[in-house]
Amino acid sequence: MDFFFNPRGIAVIGATPSKTKGGYAILKNLMTGFTGKIYPVNPRYKEIEGLTCYDSVRRVPDPADLAIVFIPAAMVPQAILECVEREIPGVIIESGGFAETGEEGLVLQESLKQIAEETGIRLWGPNCMGLVDTVRKHVFSFAAQSIWNENFVPGKVSLIVQSGMLSGVFLIDAMTHGTLNISKVCSIGNKVDVDECDILEYLMNDPETAVIGLYLESVVNGRRFMQICRSSQKPVVLLRGGKSEKGAKAAMSHTASLAGNNAVISGAMAQAGVLEASDFRQMMDICRALSMFPPRQSDTPSPLWGEGRGEGTKGRIAVLTYSGGAGIVSSDFIDASGLELSELSPETLSAMKTVFPDWMPVSNPVDLWPAVELNGAKKAYETAVNAVCADADVDAVFLHIFVGGFDLSLEVASVAKMAKDAGKPIFCFLLGEREEAYQFHKHAQEMGIAVFRELNRSVECIKAVFEQKKLLERRKFAVSAVAGVLLPEKWIEAMKGKKGSLDEHLSKRILSACKIPVVEEKVAATVEDAMSLASAFGFPVVMKGLSPGKMHKTELGLVRLGISSDDAVKTNFESLKAAMPESGRILIQKQIQGDLELIVGLIRDPQFGPCVMCGLGGVLTEILDDAVFGVAPLSRAEALDMIGRLKTQKLLNGFRGAAPVDREMLAQILMCVGDLGCICPQIKEIDINPLIISKGKPTAVDALVILNG
Amino acid sequence: MDFFFNPRGIAVIGATPSKTKGGYAILKNLMTGFTGKIYPVNPRYKEIEGLTCYDSVRRVPDPADLAIVFIPAAMVPQAILECVEREIPGVIIESGGFAETGEEGLVLQESLKQIAEETGIRLWGPNCMGLVDTVRKHVFSFAAQSIWNENFVPGKVSLIVQSGMLSGVFLIDAMTHGTLNISKVCSIGNKVDVDECDILEYLMNDPETAVIGLYLESVVNGRRFMQICRSSQKPVVLLRGGKSEKGAKAAMSHTASLAGNNAVISGAMAQAGVLEASDFRQMMDICRALSMFPPRQSDTPSPLWGEGRGEGTKGRIAVLTYSGGAGIVSSDFIDASGLELSELSPETLSAMKTVFPDWMPVSNPVDLWPAVELNGAKKAYETAVNAVCADADVDAVFLHIFVGGFDLSLEVASVAKMAKDAGKPIFCFLLGEREEAYQFHKHAQEMGIAVFRELNRSVECIKAVFEQKKLLERRKFAVSAVAGVLLPEKWIEAMKGKKGSLDEHLSKRILSACKIPVVEEKVAATVEDAMSLASAFGFPVVMKGLSPGKMHKTELGLVRLGISSDDAVKTNFESLKAAMPESGRILIQKQIQGDLELIVGLIRDPQFGPCVMCGLGGVLTEILDDAVFGVAPLSRAEALDMIGRLKTQKLLNGFRGAAPVDREMLAQILMCVGDLGCICPQIKEIDINPLIISKGKPTAVDALVILNG
Repeated sequence: MDFFFNPRGIAVIGATPSKTKGGYAILKNLMTGFTGKIYPVNPRYKEIEGLTCYDSVRRVPDPADLAIVFIPAAMVPQAILECVEREIPGVIIESGGFAETGEEGLVLQESLKQIAEETGIRLWGPNCMGLVDTVRKHVFSFAAQSIWNENFVPGKVSLIVQSGMLSGVFLIDAMTHGTLNISKVCSIGNKVDVDECDILEYLMNDPETAVIGLYLESVVNGRRFMQICRSSQKPVVLLRGGKSEKGAKAAMSHTASLAGNNAVISGAMAQAGVLEASDFRQMMDICRALSMFPPRQSDTPSPLWGEGRGEGTKGRIAVLTYSGGAGIVSSDFIDASGLELSELSPETLSAMKTVFPDWMPVSNPVDLWPAVELNGAKKAYETAVNAVCADADVDAVFLHIFVGGFDLSLEVASVAKMAKDAGKPIFCFLLGEREEAYQFHKHAQEMGIAVFRELNRSVECIKAVFEQKKLLERRKFAVSAVAGVLLPEKWIEAMKGKKGSLDEHLSKRILSACKIPVVEEKVAATVEDAMSLASAFGFPVVMKGLSPGKMHKTELGLVRLGISSDDAVKTNFESLKAAMPESGRILIQKQIQGDLELIVGLIRDPQFGPCVMCGLGGVLTEILDDAVFGVAPLSRAEALDMIGRLKTQKLLNGFRGAAPVDREMLAQILMCVGDLGCICPQIKEIDINPLIISKGKPTAVDALVILNG
Repeated sequence: MDFFFNPRGIAVIGATPSKTKGGYAILKNLMTGFTGKIYPVNPRYKEIEGLTCYDSVRRVPDPADLAIVFIPAAMVPQAILECVEREIPGVIIESGGFAETGEEGLVLQESLKQIAEETGIRLWGPNCMGLVDTVRKHVFSFAAQSIWNENFVPGKVSLIVQSGMLSGVFLIDAMTHGTLNISKVCSIGNKVDVDECDILEYLMNDPETAVIGLYLESVVNGRRFMQICRSSQKPVVLLRGGKSEKGAKAAMSHTASLAGNNAVISGAMAQAGVLEASDFRQMMDICRALSMFPPRQSDTPSPLWGEGRGEGTKGRIAVLTYSGGAGIVSSDFIDASGLELSELSPETLSAMKTVFPDWMPVSNPVDLWPAVELNGAKKAYETAVNAVCADADVDAVFLHIFVGGFDLSLEVASVAKMAKDAGKPIFCFLLGEREEAYQFHKHAQEMGIAVFRELNRSVECIKAVFEQKKLLERRKFAVSAVAGVLLPEKWIEAMKGKKGSLDEHLSKRILSACKIPVVEEKVAATVEDAMSLASAFGFPVVMKGLSPGKMHKTELGLVRLGISSDDAVKTNFESLKAAMPESGRILIQKQIQGDLELIVGLIRDPQFGPCVMCGLGGVLTEILDDAVFGVAPLSRAEALDMIGRLKTQKLLNGFRGAAPVDREMLAQILMCVGDLGCICPQIKEIDINPLIISKGKPTAVDALVILNG
């Protein structure tokens, strides 16, 4: 992929001297920043902006390892073929008019795809804005010239954006507001060949990139995406468009993207240690915070995240404010986010007391205003920051600053240094006069203080920084191969030739063979058989009619609960027999009284393949809508993590005197279900419903294994 | 209160020529903007800044109807007494050092309170920043002089802020960022006398104020606050600090405020048509949106909110964007907020098609980029805005704008006029180059377009505008007197002399006397009595032991469910008798099989008085944590509205084949409980748990009426 980012020579197919056209903008942008060779291609001109113009890319001289195409869609395939002929390895197609425009465009796009597949040429786009690299000053895009008005300040955040306009817009907005210094912005458009995975992989290995932010409307190859995330410890922040039904419809018409199953993608992203954002600037703010305070790797000690004290993982925050009110609302946000307010040590409090009037009781959040009045802002802030930086129970400093009045000016550099020396991330909530606030913002960012303009956003970003370590930890959980379940050959044989849903009993025997605990049950051939089984299980028992091809036993009246006597066994045996065709069989089960019902399942997702589902069952399913997904195979840690993502933890922890759910056992079941999905491609779906929790132990009470076809 | 806002002459007690002191800043601020008389008071000077300085406020000449005090706390009471002597009606005390500093300060503050109560002088503060009125250029505050650097652009939003620093900070930040034009900012501090209610009442009648935003750490007089809100149709937006436990603790040490019961306040605010915000700038953004698009009053037609078409109440939004991605994420936010994407009519679509390339399928969200490329931004945007403004199924226009490149400039004034003429509010999500974005922001705001820098914030504000009408509608629901429940004298007699919890049976007879449906039940004196009652009710029945003074029957083993035979009645009668002292009685009830359990109650809140609670009961109580409060008495509409605020509407609407809850009956019960709280001050608490819903009808199955003492 390096020819896309660092080519030696670029052909601009569709270059033009017409100043309002994209073909001109691309050329000008290259001429402004790119130091390699530039070859305009357009049969109508001999020369553009002083550069020799070629009538075909075939005649472009060496070196030429990238072409940028901006010509009408219908002409693109021919141009690409010429690039193939000229042996150019990569092309960025910035023209629109493909799949996003309907049937005709889709055909054109398919022809591009075919060329890429057949010839190996790499195609980026179409319908995109190309890429910008602020470090090398590469603007391979028709972005307006105004992009050069600001000097690029290279940063460590790279963006991948599945929306042409947004890529340019983000860059200009972020650059000029001093809110984010960017390394690369990649606009990927319709993804005919090069997709987010290719670029993500490149950026994971790019030394100029520390954090990757993505805006995507689809994840084409979910498993590869996860695998790439897991290959690195760089933070990845994802904003997905199309999570709602209407949004998904809009995504379809925008870049012809299938948004996919929201819950599955959420689960997969959590599993791969990807942090999900919900809004554009929020995504960029989180990326900024993560690039400033990268999680400390155990193997690569970071200057931030002090050794020995603080440890930086618990998220205990010291709030230093000039306004009691802002401190109080900060406390509310910190509480809601799951972070904590630090309990300041007596030493910290005494150190701070030296700058406060005697009457002032100091506690966290610390309202510095009385200290500022008494000792000036510089001394008050420095004393306080110094004190909390020395406190082992403070993991991060949350500073509130106002500029433009009130004598609140402080020495940013010295405060920032204190935090840096202590290895504690420092965040700032800034209000103030516009121009002064902007200057402060830029300066403080340079000094290593992450500045935000809203309290809630500040806390969201603090939270992201502290959550990141846990998220990246998850990447290490992943298993690449199946955890070890082997389905005995006899059960593989038993599935052979079958299609659709297996009956409940066979389904459970298969699950049981994979060490999933299932309810005690047996098929009764005769009434006597049934009675002796019932007495062996102990009353009450459950009797079910297994009618071939009938999945909905309850609706058909084929499920009888609470059978408590020999008489009842007999009556039910007869009435079940009567309700089924000849081939119907009768199943007798021990009736399990549970504290809680769960649902566990396996689905095959078009983007992520076999995925395991775990959710609340019974009457709570619809009310709580609490289900989580994980991509199979699952490691033990991943399975436990999935269980931990259920919203209703209260119910799992032993609600109203019930025993807590045995999470290890439940995790084992999730792993087994996932393994089955991986080793048995003939299984389309598994549905364990309910998985009853009794005295903490899960048992599959009803289950279906559904085969393909 | 007018002397606070519009005095003829002001004494500045604590005026000083020392330029770094607050007493100087107050004086300078008055001299810069105030056109009335200014009298510095300080025994150490004869003259300050060319003004005669008086040694005591007693010697200040006429007219003098306001004093601003900025002297050490210990000296304040004496100064106030001198103001009383001089017959100055109002004083703003900006000094700190009172209740917020501990015991000693609290005593000082109490002495001020006493002076106010005894003499009638109105005291504003202490520990506050006073007030700013941008219309009259009144800065009655020690705010820094830099406040004058920007010209005040008067707006229609007034703020009440229980935090000194924030009031100044908000003003300067908002003014200089062009994000909000403010009318008045009032900093109320410790509220020794003048509180948020006094100021709210004033602002409700202030022609310069259209919307009121509050930051509060406590609502001192909840009922008065509600009553004032109900007296007007001006929108009120409230941000409360101290909603979390830690936040409440911080509020206590900040302005000595008791944050109060969060759920009660939330309910009361919803009931009074107050919109709650969660963050500072969000609160101000919502205020701005509401001041630009005030809800149409049925009696006072507004130029906005077009007549006949659109109607502006449903919140159907047309999204016009330059970026497919931003359109998609907008759709996601719109969906999550409960607003809707408009279904654009065929006429609207054809009108828009005229500026789009043929291949482009136009739908909402409308990605204008292809139209911009073809026809330029001006024509593309104007055609689109014109089309959606003419569409009866569009209630608001959500425009995405980028400035600073990409030839996206449009004629703001003409677009704004289209929306205004059509009576549709218009919102803008703006990204772009910093300086251009700022200029655009200010200009667009002046033209009547509400501009925001984040998608989510834009949608929050659109939502607030559409929700506002419904919220204000609620103010009209309120009943000032009890709805009509009368408790017959015999029951009032029955409560006489009693203290604490009445027994279950008596409690339910009282509720029943107030037309609350209770379960069929009777006290059985003998076993025979019990058996005949049981057979009259029909098996199964419930038997309970009523042991005087014992509230927790279940824990004492005094509740027996599912009694299904005469034998069981007999056994249980005997064992219940044996488990209780002589005076114990035995209650027999019909056993009701319900679809759903609710809890209904009455509490007395220190800030809001008698409040009615309604929540999910049974096992769901703790899992769903779903309870709502309303301040009694409740009108029918208010009670229905309360029920509508329960999160778990799904359960109420007839879950899994159950009949939907009879909301009218449930509302009637809530009203009755509230009335009881109002007419019987001797009742401290009522607890109906469970209120069982069977076939949609509620019945009180267990209940306690708890008396004072």
